[in-house]
Amino acid sequence: MDKKIIGVDLGGTTIKFAILTKEGDIQQKWSIETNILDDGAHIVPDIVNSINHHLKLYQMKPEQFIGIGMGSPGTVDIKRGTVTGAYNLNWKSVQEVKKIVEHDTQINFTIDNDANVAALGERWKGAGENDADVAFITLGTGVGGGIVSNGSLVHGVGAAGEVGHMNVEPNGYLCTCGNHGCLETYASATGVVRVARDMAEEFSGDSQLKKQLDDGQEITAKIVFDLAKQNDILAKMVIDRVCHYLGVACANIGNLLNPSFVVIGGGVSAAGTFLLNNVEEHFAKYAFPSVRKTTHLRLAQLGNEAGVVGAASLALSL
Amino acid sequence: MDKKIIGVDLGGTTIKFAILTKEGDIQQKWSIETNILDDGAHIVPDIVNSINHHLKLYQMKPEQFIGIGMGSPGTVDIKRGTVTGAYNLNWKSVQEVKKIVEHDTQINFTIDNDANVAALGERWKGAGENDADVAFITLGTGVGGGIVSNGSLVHGVGAAGEVGHMNVEPNGYLCTCGNHGCLETYASATGVVRVARDMAEEFSGDSQLKKQLDDGQEITAKIVFDLAKQNDILAKMVIDRVCHYLGVACANIGNLLNPSFVVIGGGVSAAGTFLLNNVEEHFAKYAFPSVRKTTHLRLAQLGNEAGVVGAASLALSL
Repeated sequence: MDKKIIGVDLGGTTIKFAILTKEGDIQQKWSIETNILDDGAHIVPDIVNSINHHLKLYQMKPEQFIGIGMGSPGTVDIKRGTVTGAYNLNWKSVQEVKKIVEHDTQINFTIDNDANVAALGERWKGAGENDADVAFITLGTGVGGGIVSNGSLVHGVGAAGEVGHMNVEPNGYLCTCGNHGCLETYASATGVVRVARDMAEEFSGDSQLKKQLDDGQEITAKIVFDLAKQNDILAKMVIDRVCHYLGVACANIGNLLNPSFVVIGGGVSAAGTFLLNNVEEHFAKYAFPSVRKTTHLRLAQLGNEAGVVGAASLALSL
Repeated sequence: MDKKIIGVDLGGTTIKFAILTKEGDIQQKWSIETNILDDGAHIVPDIVNSINHHLKLYQMKPEQFIGIGMGSPGTVDIKRGTVTGAYNLNWKSVQEVKKIVEHDTQINFTIDNDANVAALGERWKGAGENDADVAFITLGTGVGGGIVSNGSLVHGVGAAGEVGHMNVEPNGYLCTCGNHGCLETYASATGVVRVARDMAEEFSGDSQLKKQLDDGQEITAKIVFDLAKQNDILAKMVIDRVCHYLGVACANIGNLLNPSFVVIGGGVSAAGTFLLNNVEEHFAKYAFPSVRKTTHLRLAQLGNEAGVVGAASLALSL
């Protein structure tokens, strides 16, 4: 029988697991809560126990697996299999993830950061059509990304894929990274709201969004997108501005790497084709003519499963 | 005896040749004029004849070579070994370069575009220190580039490396590609002069550059850089603006790919450390903190030889 692969997607609130075939079909999946108490000391033991427990449940043995692949927040040392600085897990010191998981499961282990792993997932079984050249942007609380080029993840010296920190406005908003005008400051969930608040101040027309902001109601990126879909003038202006910045970033990714697809995922991408079509308009303005024709923007297709699928795919190269 | 490689750098005025060891040491080099008459029909036969002539001269046989690698302007089909649309060579229709060269020299042949090949050269034997991740920007009449990632050139769907058409100013100058605000419109040799003319119009202080422009004297990028080095106020403002755009582009390459080196070459880079230091200042403002520390900007080291060296390196994978 063909050997299987295991994918683990470690997040700040849940840890997702899946057992997949080598072809990327999910056969089993489950998840557990992330216990970040005691400096996150329970996380790796919980992962090991959950894997061992489910293997017993499914009557499977370590020899039946090629390996375990995992996506993690923080700074991942892919060679050593360690993670540092994952603050939403309370991991401040170096975590010897690979060493512990391999010892306690007797299955080979490999790891990369969460955005890279999601990029691999969308590339393999999602919008990327398993193409050799795919870029992935995730629009969530922050903006992250991953680049697959010539069929392999691009790591560079280690920090490649910081799509959220591409500069799109030299004198723009101050970013948490310390720079000004990073894509993340405009196109993350909080970025969209920030743009809305700023543009509302100078807007004097008739707008539901303006009213809600002036009333002190809580505004989310979803509310801004929904109002824009309903033709609220201010909301449309806000979304157009956000999509301009996304279009510039996608065009620069295209001009530099000319991937077959730039896949847009993450919570903000739930705005769907309304978002995509608007970004495409701006992309067309800034993409080099041959890139405009050959690099296609797409919405992500796997949703929450991108992480486990991409993580599992890491194990294929073990 | 170890087999050798041949590099050919096809340009609009000269064709450069070199015979190199597998280690990249140039053993022989020569060049011929490019004859672009008759729709460039003489170019490929001239290349073949020159190679065969020199092999006879050096008493070498086809079996002593791994292959011939070539860099060409225009759109290169690397799989088929053909070139189209190289207008400075008068090549309008498809040129079967590989087929003819292999038949007439009896040596294996491979080809890529000139900017990619120069990137390979600087990466292998120049400023790139043979690192697996190197980006190359060439500042000449236009602005071109090439990206090496995980040790391989990035082609994407075919047009990757259009660094000159990265957008650095959404409402910027109109570019020959039809878009606005491409890096090339500011940082090419003609771009620098364009910025100078524009800024001179609004400048009223004391400046030699302003005087020369107002006198109708011909201005080149070199003159602007030289005056800036001599502390001409307007020239310094112009160079600072150009370097701002270069800094933004280098930072975005860094944020996306985190290469070990971004190598800056081409005629404009003759301005040397004066240019480099200024670009570095702007790069530092827009590069993600970990990228700022790990991606280093460098001046190209091989000059005109980057093309033949990089072209020859293509042959190593034959």
